[in-house]
Amino acid sequence: MKKLYLLLCISIFFISTGAWAQFPKGRIVDLTYSFDQQTIYWPTESGFVLEKETEGMTEKGYFYAANFFKAPEHGGTHIDAPHHFAKNGRTVDEIPLEQLMAEGIVVDVSNKALQDRDYQVTVDDFLDWEKKNGKIPEGTIVFLRTGFGKYWPDRLSYMGTDERGKDAVGELHFPGLHPQAAIWLVDSRKIKAVGLDTPSIDYGQSTHFGSHVNLFSRNVPALENLANLGELPEKGFSVIALPMKIKGGSGGPTRVVAVIDRSLQDLTK
Amino acid sequence: MKKLYLLLCISIFFISTGAWAQFPKGRIVDLTYSFDQQTIYWPTESGFVLEKETEGMTEKGYFYAANFFKAPEHGGTHIDAPHHFAKNGRTVDEIPLEQLMAEGIVVDVSNKALQDRDYQVTVDDFLDWEKKNGKIPEGTIVFLRTGFGKYWPDRLSYMGTDERGKDAVGELHFPGLHPQAAIWLVDSRKIKAVGLDTPSIDYGQSTHFGSHVNLFSRNVPALENLANLGELPEKGFSVIALPMKIKGGSGGPTRVVAVIDRSLQDLTK
Repeated sequence: MKKLYLLLCISIFFISTGAWAQFPKGRIVDLTYSFDQQTIYWPTESGFVLEKETEGMTEKGYFYAANFFKAPEHGGTHIDAPHHFAKNGRTVDEIPLEQLMAEGIVVDVSNKALQDRDYQVTVDDFLDWEKKNGKIPEGTIVFLRTGFGKYWPDRLSYMGTDERGKDAVGELHFPGLHPQAAIWLVDSRKIKAVGLDTPSIDYGQSTHFGSHVNLFSRNVPALENLANLGELPEKGFSVIALPMKIKGGSGGPTRVVAVIDRSLQDLTK
Repeated sequence: MKKLYLLLCISIFFISTGAWAQFPKGRIVDLTYSFDQQTIYWPTESGFVLEKETEGMTEKGYFYAANFFKAPEHGGTHIDAPHHFAKNGRTVDEIPLEQLMAEGIVVDVSNKALQDRDYQVTVDDFLDWEKKNGKIPEGTIVFLRTGFGKYWPDRLSYMGTDERGKDAVGELHFPGLHPQAAIWLVDSRKIKAVGLDTPSIDYGQSTHFGSHVNLFSRNVPALENLANLGELPEKGFSVIALPMKIKGGSGGPTRVVAVIDRSLQDLTK
């Protein structure tokens, strides 16, 4: 009898301790590329520019460095706010933070996408994931891993062209999400957001950007040019995607991180 | 005997369920101001500019909006990376994410600072906080609440001057952290980062920026122009501060959020 009480107390103590462990509870993975001269933007956009204002010792004897920067909203690791392709969709400052902080999953289609640059992720790809992992829970942030992250920052292999300007848009070849699968993710699985390791949620050869329209008219944003998706498990991690809060913006630079749940991952180590 | 087993199972079940509850576990508070024409920058800096590229229906029948923006690194809700005032300090892309995600506390000095615009937060203010709340744990992110957030975005009341240019710098009057208290926070309490609701971690009348130098030479970054600090409790929340990842940057726009621990806060509601 006393032994059982002791067991009870010890159990509660250890489980409670786990629940009170220091935040964040897991291994942090940065899913964000740095912004620099190599950062990839759409062929019709200019790039990221950092202008040095000051760097060095001042007359008063302290060191001082400061810069100025300019960039299009859409490029590098960034978010597309719903307003990017939906007139009444939320601007980037209006996206609720609750929609950008959630449990995440990775659907790995790299076997198909690395064979076919024009691959579009289908509902069947998600059903295959569910056969192994169970139904995608409501409120999930869904990452598509095409494997194209390994080409960053080489424009030719990552986008299919390193040309610039309007004519280059027709030469884009990279995988994306099929517009019908976009509807299914939102309507049938009620996901919070979607993201992938290519420049656009629609595949490179898209002309009408159906996945953008289908997601954004339903106020579900997309994260593009994600880094390091290969470091994530299929499930068992949290996502925090915090965009620069541009008033009225259609999107913008976003720092995306994942926290891998140690209680799941470290069991195997 | 059977009852005890049952009690044991039930206890473990409920405590485990808590640990598995959906991320994030708490109420999210956005500590970030939007970037727009009103965003406050230092008197010697230009401001944030958003240029509209496109907004409207395209020939193909879908809506499209995209913008271009430019800004100095330091203004609005942003982070000062150590390199801002320390030659060998980390640039903004080099700050470990572990240093930007931690438990937070608020030290409220608004009673003093709203009476004296030139107030500098002292070691005694932290010791007063500790008398009530216990020792500041190692690895904490420390927020100073001066109360000046209520003046945002009125430059005159927030900064002490709405003039621009070099001469205006001498007219700055707002509270900050005392350089000696900066050393104490890092050396005696081993904090991860510090933040406040004014334009600068040094007070407006500073000429040698001692808190910047003392913090940054120890690789501890500072968060400036934080919003909504009045919505946070003195302790019992987590901080996530994710900067735009500017390669080699001395700082940059940062989305700062707090997650208030429901298990602590909601007990009183």
